[in-house]
Amino acid sequence: MGKVICAGLGPGDPELMSVKSDRAIRGAKHLAFFRKKGRAGQARSIVKDMLREDVVEYPMEYPVTTELRFDSEEYRHLMVDFYTEWADKLADLATEHDVVVLCEGDPFLYGSFMHLQTRLQGRTEVEVLPAIPGMVGCWNAIGDPFTWGDDVLTVLMGTLPDAELEDHMRRADALVVMKTGRNLPRVRRALAATGRLQDAWLVEKGTMPGQRVAKLSDVDDADCPYFAIVLVHGQGRRPEAAE
Amino acid sequence: MGKVICAGLGPGDPELMSVKSDRAIRGAKHLAFFRKKGRAGQARSIVKDMLREDVVEYPMEYPVTTELRFDSEEYRHLMVDFYTEWADKLADLATEHDVVVLCEGDPFLYGSFMHLQTRLQGRTEVEVLPAIPGMVGCWNAIGDPFTWGDDVLTVLMGTLPDAELEDHMRRADALVVMKTGRNLPRVRRALAATGRLQDAWLVEKGTMPGQRVAKLSDVDDADCPYFAIVLVHGQGRRPEAAE
Repeated sequence: MGKVICAGLGPGDPELMSVKSDRAIRGAKHLAFFRKKGRAGQARSIVKDMLREDVVEYPMEYPVTTELRFDSEEYRHLMVDFYTEWADKLADLATEHDVVVLCEGDPFLYGSFMHLQTRLQGRTEVEVLPAIPGMVGCWNAIGDPFTWGDDVLTVLMGTLPDAELEDHMRRADALVVMKTGRNLPRVRRALAATGRLQDAWLVEKGTMPGQRVAKLSDVDDADCPYFAIVLVHGQGRRPEAAE
Repeated sequence: MGKVICAGLGPGDPELMSVKSDRAIRGAKHLAFFRKKGRAGQARSIVKDMLREDVVEYPMEYPVTTELRFDSEEYRHLMVDFYTEWADKLADLATEHDVVVLCEGDPFLYGSFMHLQTRLQGRTEVEVLPAIPGMVGCWNAIGDPFTWGDDVLTVLMGTLPDAELEDHMRRADALVVMKTGRNLPRVRRALAATGRLQDAWLVEKGTMPGQRVAKLSDVDDADCPYFAIVLVHGQGRRPEAAE
């Protein structure tokens, strides 16, 4: 009897994955990973120099979706079928072998692996190896402490409605905005409306080849990189009594 | 010329530190770490089986403060002197050697190293190695995905005033509360007031020997462990259009 091991990869630099994930990946005889059809896959690229020669690979290719709105019923059904099918395959493989599933960032922080984990519950042993979240790699790339003292840190998705973005941006000290991409102009407007734009950074491909760190206010409006995170540092809020 | 390398240790399990931190620590000839006077020190304990035989150690012992309120002027002066003195010593050492400074969790997320980094600026090269934050180790220990979809994640300090705790607890989907300890009864009341108590977990010594994972509602009122984090999972909020 084997098990399914979800190995968190961290922010992108292979040296930043944990000793435990590193060992699991180097020893893997069966390796599964998500990717878009026709692409090498970000996760697979991170581990490219770490694999055994005799590794058996299982690229889990997301169904082609460019023609479908991601909020359509059709897209939902495609995704449900996709995850169900792969959960079945992994459960089947795990009756005989350990299978390592790659997951960018930390698997439990907005990770796709959860869709498989839910469907594997009670069918096979699942071990999840934590990792440095992408946002941690991004604030490390900027080079300054991100939060200290009593700072409130809030992590937001750029897909949230404007009013919610602004509400949280006003109340939090340190901010992380993920899923930027085509939402970046809205994120920028919300930051401006709440007086946070001048302190905002854009980090693209944090800790990876091609890494770019820029003040968001210096980034062109039309420039909406896909794999980017927006960050605003906390200011080191202190308990009132200490002021 | 050497440099100061701040090696993030992650949540506590030595296998969860990055390959890069692992290598820096195993190779360190000069090793500095914070600890309370008379204690082995949490950071030093994590690396105890990783050190060279000929390593030179620099325990940076926090000034004794049990007699002083942490918000007093006297305490502040003691701490400023402490950090200034150690920044001087590290800058001096780094003129000849690399010095590795240990830091629990991720150094840029509420880490103490920042007080040294500020004082080392422009005097010596400083490299900071990111790590898995303590909270990531804690939600991994619970075993379920912590956030997905469009969940808003907020990280709070238990030292915040009640009204602020409640305000953020009402608005966020997933919650992390650090600096619990003697603030735990207040944190518990704020969670109850906002309807989040039944979903809250307490994780003590996450990923370390003696780890304890409990529903907060099952923990006795008088039980306020020092090294504990409170977590409430997100529910997987979806963009409205997809409902």
